[in-house]
Amino acid sequence: MRLPVLVLAGLVAGLVPAGPANTRPPAADPLPSWNDTTPKRAITEFVARVTKEGSPDFVPPAERVATFDNDGTLWCEQPMYPEVVFAFDRVKALAPKHPEWKDTEPFKAVLDGNHKALAAAGAKGLSAVIAATHTGLTVEEFRAAAADWLATARHPKYDRPYTECVYQPMLELLAYLRAGGFKTFVVSGGTAEFIRVWAEKAYGVPPEQVVGTTFELKYADRPGGPAIVVEPRFDLVDDGAGKPVGISRRIGRRPVMAFGNSDGDFEMLEYTTAGKGARFGLVVHHTDAEREYAYDRKSWVGRLDRALDAAPKRGWVVASIKDDWKTVFPPPKK
Amino acid sequence: MRLPVLVLAGLVAGLVPAGPANTRPPAADPLPSWNDTTPKRAITEFVARVTKEGSPDFVPPAERVATFDNDGTLWCEQPMYPEVVFAFDRVKALAPKHPEWKDTEPFKAVLDGNHKALAAAGAKGLSAVIAATHTGLTVEEFRAAAADWLATARHPKYDRPYTECVYQPMLELLAYLRAGGFKTFVVSGGTAEFIRVWAEKAYGVPPEQVVGTTFELKYADRPGGPAIVVEPRFDLVDDGAGKPVGISRRIGRRPVMAFGNSDGDFEMLEYTTAGKGARFGLVVHHTDAEREYAYDRKSWVGRLDRALDAAPKRGWVVASIKDDWKTVFPPPKK
Repeated sequence: MRLPVLVLAGLVAGLVPAGPANTRPPAADPLPSWNDTTPKRAITEFVARVTKEGSPDFVPPAERVATFDNDGTLWCEQPMYPEVVFAFDRVKALAPKHPEWKDTEPFKAVLDGNHKALAAAGAKGLSAVIAATHTGLTVEEFRAAAADWLATARHPKYDRPYTECVYQPMLELLAYLRAGGFKTFVVSGGTAEFIRVWAEKAYGVPPEQVVGTTFELKYADRPGGPAIVVEPRFDLVDDGAGKPVGISRRIGRRPVMAFGNSDGDFEMLEYTTAGKGARFGLVVHHTDAEREYAYDRKSWVGRLDRALDAAPKRGWVVASIKDDWKTVFPPPKK
Repeated sequence: MRLPVLVLAGLVAGLVPAGPANTRPPAADPLPSWNDTTPKRAITEFVARVTKEGSPDFVPPAERVATFDNDGTLWCEQPMYPEVVFAFDRVKALAPKHPEWKDTEPFKAVLDGNHKALAAAGAKGLSAVIAATHTGLTVEEFRAAAADWLATARHPKYDRPYTECVYQPMLELLAYLRAGGFKTFVVSGGTAEFIRVWAEKAYGVPPEQVVGTTFELKYADRPGGPAIVVEPRFDLVDDGAGKPVGISRRIGRRPVMAFGNSDGDFEMLEYTTAGKGARFGLVVHHTDAEREYAYDRKSWVGRLDRALDAAPKRGWVVASIKDDWKTVFPPPKK
């Protein structure tokens, strides 16, 4: 418990971190990694409008909910969703315990590195791999496995840990919105447990503000005491029309702002911006083959087609990485 | 956005509300409605221990999660769970649209006020009534129906709105824990949507911190735009072993403190107190027939039997309403 004089002293000395009731003023430029183009102006203009008391668009702090897709919106999803790379690596690690995988698709394709067979297995095959590598263990055990992988795996293009391949402009945006009294949530097609392992450190988003794909869970006795065991059946596939469902179930409010980058975010953007009062939707468009990747309508990973067509009609802002972001990634950690 | 000089001025003037980074010191007695008996001492001693930096039991603020059962722990659940009363009243209101209910149990029993037939229908019958009255409409429509009911329904013993039949000592406890940096969650066997209607106002617990029983949800087009429709299938029955599951899925952390009053809270208390490090479990024991109700092992509503036996063995504190609470309810609103 802090005494008020300490809070005061802390504020004066700049030692008290920003919190909902203790918001720092924005720096002269709260979004330095964004160019001074339309998306940045739209964001700052919107936030000013909804946070200004007396404004006709004022949104009370309790209702300021902002939801962010993860893959391709907060971190790099190319050349393959990192959680899928994790699942593939885990198939290889678990293979000695599953000799049958050598002859069973899609596991055989993963073990052989057979991309053609993997593509043929499609979304159903991928779901089978995700289920086999994410279930049948406790939540704690899964998190430990994910943390171990994240500690050593490196992005093939950037040769950095995946958790450093996060978008600097979006980190600034998360902090900027929180300073404006918004609660920031990750709403991902990836699994909630995978994201919870690192979202707090990477994004400042705590586990209870992570909405993602989930499996059925079972409360069970384990040698170490009662624990939560992950069952091999999906509870919620938090993608597409599953995103508004996940938002309603876990957050219980329609967001005021939503950020995505692919057709899997269409319904989240639609649900958000169809709400009454001021609403904001933004699509990150991957246009920068040099600094990142350029892909949209024809990509299997992060396909952006329907949502790109819908954006102008529905007033969703499109942010082009090439044109609107000054920086893509944070500086390398020393 | 507040300028720092305003934050400073606000603090000095006492105008800035308490927040995580700006915690007020506790008043001389932060729990005035608790007698100075074992439960109050155990609570304050525990909170002092886990919030003191340098203490071997120190818990970082991000991990300070406290979960509260609702019925019988935060508000009065006798003579019948208020949500069940709501469901029964809703059966009566909806009956003209469901002429078949006149001849179909358990609806017939509800319409006839036939308690014997209702008791015979048991938990399965009750589930059918809950499903029929809580689903087939949008989340917004359900909340409006619940809000309408709560605005007029009155508790039969106290002749006050149900939302005023909340326990003053627990309101103080919620505020005290939040002042100590805890995030407070409701984890209820009642439905999340029913509780979200009033928990923010009554308890200071926002919708995203309400975990409860949920139904399957569907994202659908409605005349007023896209909306979330509640489907007549349970997603999670957040009671008994469902509580640790709901906690894991929605909160993503094992609680540090848990508060319950019935056998439906057994697994939540067990899961919480089986965690590593300092943990705290408390059972509210309804012992006060005069000021409230006296019930435990033989009550159908809020049965407390197994958890009462387990409490001393597992170190769960038992708070007797008669002996440990100075006041039960807040003063009537003017």
